[in-house]
Amino acid sequence: MSDTLTTQPAAGAPDHDGSIVLGDNQYGKAEVRLVKVDRDHPRHRITDLSVTSQLRGDFTVAHTEGDNSPVVATDTQKNTVFAFAKDGIGSPEEFALRLAEHFTSSFDWVTGGRWGVKEYTWEHIPTSLENNAADGEHNHAFVKGGTETRTAVVQRDGDEVFVVAGLEDLKVLKSTGSEFHGFPRDRYTTLVETDDRILATSVTARWRYLRTDIDYNAVYDDVRRILLETFADVHSYALQQTLYQMGRRVLEAHPEIGEIKFSMPNLHHFLVDFEPFGLENPNEVFYAADRPYGLIEGEVKRSDIEPEPRAWATVTGFC
Amino acid sequence: MSDTLTTQPAAGAPDHDGSIVLGDNQYGKAEVRLVKVDRDHPRHRITDLSVTSQLRGDFTVAHTEGDNSPVVATDTQKNTVFAFAKDGIGSPEEFALRLAEHFTSSFDWVTGGRWGVKEYTWEHIPTSLENNAADGEHNHAFVKGGTETRTAVVQRDGDEVFVVAGLEDLKVLKSTGSEFHGFPRDRYTTLVETDDRILATSVTARWRYLRTDIDYNAVYDDVRRILLETFADVHSYALQQTLYQMGRRVLEAHPEIGEIKFSMPNLHHFLVDFEPFGLENPNEVFYAADRPYGLIEGEVKRSDIEPEPRAWATVTGFC
Amino acid sequence: MSDTLTTQPAAGAPDHDGSIVLGDNQYGKAEVRLVKVDRDHPRHRITDLSVTSQLRGDFTVAHTEGDNSPVVATDTQKNTVFAFAKDGIGSPEEFALRLAEHFTSSFDWVTGGRWGVKEYTWEHIPTSLENNAADGEHNHAFVKGGTETRTAVVQRDGDEVFVVAGLEDLKVLKSTGSEFHGFPRDRYTTLVETDDRILATSVTARWRYLRTDIDYNAVYDDVRRILLETFADVHSYALQQTLYQMGRRVLEAHPEIGEIKFSMPNLHHFLVDFEPFGLENPNEVFYAADRPYGLIEGEVKRSDIEPEPRAWATVTGFC
Amino acid sequence: MSDTLTTQPAAGAPDHDGSIVLGDNQYGKAEVRLVKVDRDHPRHRITDLSVTSQLRGDFTVAHTEGDNSPVVATDTQKNTVFAFAKDGIGSPEEFALRLAEHFTSSFDWVTGGRWGVKEYTWEHIPTSLENNAADGEHNHAFVKGGTETRTAVVQRDGDEVFVVAGLEDLKVLKSTGSEFHGFPRDRYTTLVETDDRILATSVTARWRYLRTDIDYNAVYDDVRRILLETFADVHSYALQQTLYQMGRRVLEAHPEIGEIKFSMPNLHHFLVDFEPFGLENPNEVFYAADRPYGLIEGEVKRSDIEPEPRAWATVTGFC
Repeated sequence: MSDTLTTQPAAGAPDHDGSIVLGDNQYGKAEVRLVKVDRDHPRHRITDLSVTSQLRGDFTVAHTEGDNSPVVATDTQKNTVFAFAKDGIGSPEEFALRLAEHFTSSFDWVTGGRWGVKEYTWEHIPTSLENNAADGEHNHAFVKGGTETRTAVVQRDGDEVFVVAGLEDLKVLKSTGSEFHGFPRDRYTTLVETDDRILATSVTARWRYLRTDIDYNAVYDDVRRILLETFADVHSYALQQTLYQMGRRVLEAHPEIGEIKFSMPNLHHFLVDFEPFGLENPNEVFYAADRPYGLIEGEVKRSDIEPEPRAWATVTGFC
Repeated sequence: MSDTLTTQPAAGAPDHDGSIVLGDNQYGKAEVRLVKVDRDHPRHRITDLSVTSQLRGDFTVAHTEGDNSPVVATDTQKNTVFAFAKDGIGSPEEFALRLAEHFTSSFDWVTGGRWGVKEYTWEHIPTSLENNAADGEHNHAFVKGGTETRTAVVQRDGDEVFVVAGLEDLKVLKSTGSEFHGFPRDRYTTLVETDDRILATSVTARWRYLRTDIDYNAVYDDVRRILLETFADVHSYALQQTLYQMGRRVLEAHPEIGEIKFSMPNLHHFLVDFEPFGLENPNEVFYAADRPYGLIEGEVKRSDIEPEPRAWATVTGFC
Repeated sequence: MSDTLTTQPAAGAPDHDGSIVLGDNQYGKAEVRLVKVDRDHPRHRITDLSVTSQLRGDFTVAHTEGDNSPVVATDTQKNTVFAFAKDGIGSPEEFALRLAEHFTSSFDWVTGGRWGVKEYTWEHIPTSLENNAADGEHNHAFVKGGTETRTAVVQRDGDEVFVVAGLEDLKVLKSTGSEFHGFPRDRYTTLVETDDRILATSVTARWRYLRTDIDYNAVYDDVRRILLETFADVHSYALQQTLYQMGRRVLEAHPEIGEIKFSMPNLHHFLVDFEPFGLENPNEVFYAADRPYGLIEGEVKRSDIEPEPRAWATVTGFC
Repeated sequence: MSDTLTTQPAAGAPDHDGSIVLGDNQYGKAEVRLVKVDRDHPRHRITDLSVTSQLRGDFTVAHTEGDNSPVVATDTQKNTVFAFAKDGIGSPEEFALRLAEHFTSSFDWVTGGRWGVKEYTWEHIPTSLENNAADGEHNHAFVKGGTETRTAVVQRDGDEVFVVAGLEDLKVLKSTGSEFHGFPRDRYTTLVETDDRILATSVTARWRYLRTDIDYNAVYDDVRRILLETFADVHSYALQQTLYQMGRRVLEAHPEIGEIKFSMPNLHHFLVDFEPFGLENPNEVFYAADRPYGLIEGEVKRSDIEPEPRAWATVTGFC
């Protein structure tokens, strides 16, 4: 390696002065798969969640001595998740906030934690039959809907709480209205410029709320709408440009959001070369490649807001 | 093992009289990921397919001598799939039938084959913006839709052709209207009877057409509608009963279908026991289990139709 | 479609004479994840299985009337799987045969079924520490080993029983010793001939035993050895040729096996074109592609053995 | 929510003073699947990698104006990865360091980036045949080996460079030598204490090097050895205790490592209740559950080393 490279901290000399200690840690139960049925009315509602609860605090003796006296069992955390569902979910964010409040107030040494929730979408089955149906939809029969998964990550540190909402796997595609040219060329550049390509991605987006008095379901729906409409609307010269506009329009419409982060693969669709077959292919037939794929990641934020790394700790990947 | 057991054929004696020979075989290119854009109108249409082409015929010398003179390269099969897409897809079934006709008519020794197609659903993005949009939908921007994958398997044997249509991963759930009781009890039976449970499954269905002059897209849509409506409509005493009614109603409505096969997991949702917490759980909070799961598989058919095993050969799993 | 095409049966006329009836069916519990610990000696042994039990017989009333009186609950099947493990597994085949014997002898109307077993490999952790270790291996600590999954499918029909053993996901690769040329060229052929390429596949193999008095574990180990050695040994002119030799050598060594079937993807490794960079690439740097892939499937069998379709029914895919 | 909760920063008032700007961002090509064959000797060696290259620097105009003049195409990054493989891989860490040096020195505005490498293990096929074999192993035929994936993440920021090595999916299990008791009990606690249980996990570990003059392959092998031996050796009272000892012993043996982080699911194996069947189950038959699972995450570090958040940025999950 180049001698000019330095690593931090400098030495890593063979003789360390300090001792070996426990650093950051958290533990709990992951992917508690919970379905809550609201059956107060003939028209049922269902909420389908995967909940992960992890506690932070002083668990040193469990690590160093195998003393479990502070270890609220992961099984207990699971039971608590189920029991709290009885009173209704509300929204993934509110459910996570309730769990956070419970664990930090019930056990002195639990000073915080991380509660992650994924929600899967179901829709009432449309039906022309009259049994148990209203308005052309069956009252208590559902079909899995949509492709994206809604996500929420609540982290609590003492009396401070951080709420990051999001979605994953929102797959979108434009069959035209996307160009890519003007990039630098070096010895290893072979890519041909194009002024008409397919642009496809699977959006992962996460945004941080600046407050907790939010109508989380309503804001989620509106952010999702803005993301879709903006992807469709922007004539794209780079996926980076589309990403930035998607983030910008979300922040413009929602002052309660501080920043939004995206991880967006560029899911390549290559025009198939028909020349060997004596045919033309005017942007009609594409090969959808799996790997490798482009990977565009970026954050759009407000310049007057302090960064809050604790809100983004242990959030998977870039965002 | 019990002495009364016999295996077929009887002996498998150490000295076989016969020689070792090649049996059934097929080869080709799998999962050709193809996106076709129809851009004849401002409102684009896209067709997103995974196509597998496999040839059957006399390929013995390739196996026994490594002589590739009859081996139409899998790369050539891939190129052909792309080239044929230029003239439009029509439906997965029609596209597979065209490929079958091409390969069997182009190479003397190719006497048949198997062409499997999966189709993924995309929907125009709804938008309130006017750019490139009509009727509240964007002309050339799409979002991945639905959860099921449409499938088609065409097999050809000389001049005979067999068309099996289907769908996979159609996830449905009923939050009430399902019972399970009256089953036999033996030493190993611990299951409690219930008159109100969640019933959930992921439908895989495949049906065989008795003709080829079918409006495949229209029939597909109608079969899907019947499957959903029947799942919702039947008050279920067993998943077997729901399965049978789903098949029966499809055959009643569609004389062009000979039989329909289902593979339907019983995706268990267990009521969480709240008694230790001093709470009641009146069918409100469920644990969605992954494994093990029930697996209910069955065929519904017409009694006056001869079975056609060749139509179902190498169709994955039970159906 | 071509008028010369016929479908079987001919008409599918709008008026069917026959009634709609239940066809083949089976049901049970899938993917029962079972770990058996043999702790008779300080050096433990573990057997890690996924077991699927499905019953066949007369279950018509469950389908047509929702009458569960013949339905041995899938939960009971699961319990039985666990209970039978207490007496030891032996081998996946023997365990499945015991389950088959139990269910068909315990319930009059259960005339047969399908029992599928997958086994995952674990190895004792090598260790230089003396605690609880012998011969350089820890007595009761294990690391997951190997990449293939061992499979067994036992099907029973009355007093007849069929045993198909196999393996999945055995990934192998040759960095030379593979050629591909001499294939026919048509309008759609662009593939360049090669006399040195990477050959890689993930072997799925399944073989049928002609008897049940087999040392299943010993034969499995030897078939696996032959498959690996033959893949390595054959200078390949086509993956078909390698497949055929692999099957042939298994049958030559094991008269107790009637036929063997393979499904072998051709996992393409394309030589990267270094010419644009002014470099040479003498078969050194390859791009490993995901999709599409070649898919080579074939059976090698004895000419003096009658086919037994019941042994192969509901075995996934081609083999 | 409790009124005592605060979010950071306080208000998020409807009127933000600041503007909306681009924050952190990176982009590149992900999962470049590369196989390098070293054929200098009859006994070949292969290196099987998935490489992700992402650049950081000033790419603002691409985001705000769709101006690609600074955007080194992801396709170019892919080509570069392949071209650099020609000169040999060395180790995942060295390969990533070379890519980092290339991109940051070739383009003024590229000030850093992230290079992630995964390496898959292959072993020479053991063989008793003499063709192309030495010492009982075939020269150029390989079988996929092991279960874990080796990982490396190199991040560069100007002239500073951060190397995090690791592994994923190292599945281990102890059939005894694990207890769990002494945990606190509240209203929601139902878990029974145990002094003999199966302990199973899939280790993800990542450790940061304090220098770059490392024999990366040798250290990797030794860390892997220590992780396995320690898991086996520790009589466990909590997975947290096992985790801590694994980290501690790595740091004791390797002064060149500053800290190590773990994410270890507790893969539950529940003892099956045989009482309803009139049987005993003395820790012999277990049900291996999928979800939910425990999730234990923790860091072991040196007390005299400054934290380096940049080394851990955009490393997936907790570690």
